[in-house]
Amino acid sequence: MRREPHPYLRGELVVVIDCSQLDRSAEFWTGVLGYVRDGVASGRYQSLLPGNGQGAEILLQQVPEGKHAKNRVHLDLRTRELESEMQRLTSLGARVLTEEPVAESGWRWHILADPDGNEFCVLEPPVSHWPD
Amino acid sequence: MRREPHPYLRGELVVVIDCSQLDRSAEFWTGVLGYVRDGVASGRYQSLLPGNGQGAEILLQQVPEGKHAKNRVHLDLRTRELESEMQRLTSLGARVLTEEPVAESGWRWHILADPDGNEFCVLEPPVSHWPD
Repeated sequence: MRREPHPYLRGELVVVIDCSQLDRSAEFWTGVLGYVRDGVASGRYQSLLPGNGQGAEILLQQVPEGKHAKNRVHLDLRTRELESEMQRLTSLGARVLTEEPVAESGWRWHILADPDGNEFCVLEPPVSHWPD
Repeated sequence: MRREPHPYLRGELVVVIDCSQLDRSAEFWTGVLGYVRDGVASGRYQSLLPGNGQGAEILLQQVPEGKHAKNRVHLDLRTRELESEMQRLTSLGARVLTEEPVAESGWRWHILADPDGNEFCVLEPPVSHWPD
């Protein structure tokens, strides 16, 4: 697998997600994103990479403290069909925080939570969002 | 500019960052990452894209509430030369939260904060991290 990290102006951009159990979160996020584990955990870290090696690494970081406030940085997952993706994500263990989808400007979305309660969103943009 | 979003298994992956002032955060994060604004702000959102259009969108989201706890999701910026990058980032308005660099397993890093206090890290990996 050829590794091609996500660039930023002076190097590589990585997204770090705090968790309480590396293995549980690795199982969850690899399933959600279609990522793979980059080897085994090293200390309190487990790296996840896109299945084809190209793109942003997700670095899971085990932390002792629990979550107490809404995340101020989160992932948005934009998909073509909200309902089928919600089924897939809940079957992977995502908790749904919105009873009904939020609707705004032609977008519809749900707010979900990972095993540690980290919020993320799954959104169906208007059809015009997608390239032909 | 050809736009190529960051994929995930069922669509596009986007990173959302909460802020109190869209324009101030857009100025900051475009400078930090080498991103550009995707047009003007739309309501409480301002989209930022990689300068060449290829890769993860950063979506700034204006929120009414302030930040009260350490971020549980954050960005890591990996770079080849920590000190010069720290100079660049502080000149862009980043606040440094670590007096001395943290050092662990050949990595050295600082923790910084964006204008709203969102933590992010700038890391210099060991030389072996970089491809030849």
